[in-house]
Amino acid sequence: MDVKTKYNVAIVGATGAVGQKIIELLEVEKFPVDTLKLLSSERSAGKKVLFRNTELVVERATPESFNNVDIALFSAGGSVSKQFAHEAVKRGAVVVDNTSAFRMDPSVPLVVPEVNESDLKWHNGIIANPNCSTIQLVAALKPLQQKFGVKRVIVSTYQSVSGAGTSAVQELEDQSKAVLEGKETTPEILPVKNGAKHYPIAFNALPQIDVFQDNGFTFEEMKMINESKKILHDLDLSVAATCVRLPFFTSHAESVYIETEGTNVTVDDVQKTFQHAEGVVLEDDPATQTYPTPVSAVNKKEVFIGRVRKDLDVPTGFHFWIVSDNLLKGAAWNSIQIAQRLIENKWL
Amino acid sequence: MDVKTKYNVAIVGATGAVGQKIIELLEVEKFPVDTLKLLSSERSAGKKVLFRNTELVVERATPESFNNVDIALFSAGGSVSKQFAHEAVKRGAVVVDNTSAFRMDPSVPLVVPEVNESDLKWHNGIIANPNCSTIQLVAALKPLQQKFGVKRVIVSTYQSVSGAGTSAVQELEDQSKAVLEGKETTPEILPVKNGAKHYPIAFNALPQIDVFQDNGFTFEEMKMINESKKILHDLDLSVAATCVRLPFFTSHAESVYIETEGTNVTVDDVQKTFQHAEGVVLEDDPATQTYPTPVSAVNKKEVFIGRVRKDLDVPTGFHFWIVSDNLLKGAAWNSIQIAQRLIENKWL
Repeated sequence: MDVKTKYNVAIVGATGAVGQKIIELLEVEKFPVDTLKLLSSERSAGKKVLFRNTELVVERATPESFNNVDIALFSAGGSVSKQFAHEAVKRGAVVVDNTSAFRMDPSVPLVVPEVNESDLKWHNGIIANPNCSTIQLVAALKPLQQKFGVKRVIVSTYQSVSGAGTSAVQELEDQSKAVLEGKETTPEILPVKNGAKHYPIAFNALPQIDVFQDNGFTFEEMKMINESKKILHDLDLSVAATCVRLPFFTSHAESVYIETEGTNVTVDDVQKTFQHAEGVVLEDDPATQTYPTPVSAVNKKEVFIGRVRKDLDVPTGFHFWIVSDNLLKGAAWNSIQIAQRLIENKWL
Repeated sequence: MDVKTKYNVAIVGATGAVGQKIIELLEVEKFPVDTLKLLSSERSAGKKVLFRNTELVVERATPESFNNVDIALFSAGGSVSKQFAHEAVKRGAVVVDNTSAFRMDPSVPLVVPEVNESDLKWHNGIIANPNCSTIQLVAALKPLQQKFGVKRVIVSTYQSVSGAGTSAVQELEDQSKAVLEGKETTPEILPVKNGAKHYPIAFNALPQIDVFQDNGFTFEEMKMINESKKILHDLDLSVAATCVRLPFFTSHAESVYIETEGTNVTVDDVQKTFQHAEGVVLEDDPATQTYPTPVSAVNKKEVFIGRVRKDLDVPTGFHFWIVSDNLLKGAAWNSIQIAQRLIENKWL
């Protein structure tokens, strides 16, 4: 059997916020690309994108687009993934899917490489990239789970508009300008693009990300809850989430409370564990007002953690603050990492 | 003994964000003002302010300023309150203090009228107005405490810049404009005005409000924790807080998790309790995407609650979302309410 050293890569959703970041990373990270095929919906077909100084034309995706593709990176929405992922697999590609289409499918591994790389091994052609807010949470939880055990997680999120796509980014920019100029604007995108009601995001906070479920939680909240349990291989883990959209462009932040299984864990133990964890950077020093913020995490690939402190009442309780670039570790970079690990481990 | 029907009122910090709101409310709420004296630091003395169509000149505060004052409303910072509150009391005034100077003093009642009005009765001349983020939290907790018992509270806040004063409001405005125009700016105010380090607030989130304490919590977080226990008369209540400053101008929001003493409490029970609580408005209907936001609460006096839902793992656990105008119920309006109740109950 030939061992390939270069791969034919397809990007589905090449013109979206995440697709653009994926193209950037393939180049910057020197990913072993043989040919690159850019695919999208009819609407974006014909657009031109630079890759390694060559102009590539975005094509409309069809089942045949995936002939001779080794790795297909999908980030064009769940319906597109449902339409084309199996077609790509049928033609021999391995799909890394950055939508919610297959995440909870028991036959599909849901992977954050630093957390559960070995789940890549049992893939059947599709690997799901978790939700952005889940990725940074489990990256922080995994080292704690390994060292002390974690039995309970309560998280409140502070999420940027880029998680809702480029139209939401534009809405925040336009609305902010209008408010500062004292002009009226009509919200049209957030909180949910095709929702019945829209609220202003400029200088505001919206406690709704994605649609509501019957239990009162939003789909974003349920993604965090269910995906965390799957990735951490602990269906009994108690996870609760409140997800809030905020007026900044990039990075998600999370205020997290956990309870460890182990007793006698100290703040120092937790900080040291984060310091030695893969993909995690501890930025935590109250004396020098050191902690991560959304702005400080932009364009960085790591998950940043600060504000580690012990609960004042519960001896096994800890609080901390996680920040990461939702377009990089939360999406594009995690997808690229998955593809890299598939190659390195010969699991493609 | 004469029963007064009109009162000589002094406002200390008349030119600040809260002072301005107090002056507005005294007029709009038809507070029985006989004379109004506006006091401030030397810096603001001489400024002119309209009250009932009359121009009043702001005077520099001295101990003698409080001669013949019945009610003195302080909101000029803790050091000013420490300097003048006792001087005012000595001269016969009752002080409603909106700083942290006396809040945890056991001889000073700390009051949210809807929650613990009766504590006004035992005042010794000074009544403390709680921290803005505490007020809206206890307004929501009190009816639950009465009906079901509350044993545990974990809150993550989403706080506006106006809580940090008018210079922080200006900083958000100027910085936002600069970022939108692609210009560089140097943060100078937030997170803490006289702190050693400043971070940009425009399109960002800062997990620090007020200075850090030795236990890793900020002073704002400790205010929420300690003040809530005092106001709710439950020193055993477990309270944890993470306070975050965000880029909006007015209103604070809070993502709250509680555990009730009572078992078998339903979401419907909690919602009904909020519906019947004084000063609280339930805005909670996922089907119509109804929930409060900072913008929707601006210039309103109530505490708004939405997103009530039951924890998926803990049978006594509930999550909800609280929003209130930090300058009104969080400060000026609560102070005015305290003064009104003192008069109504003849506790002046």
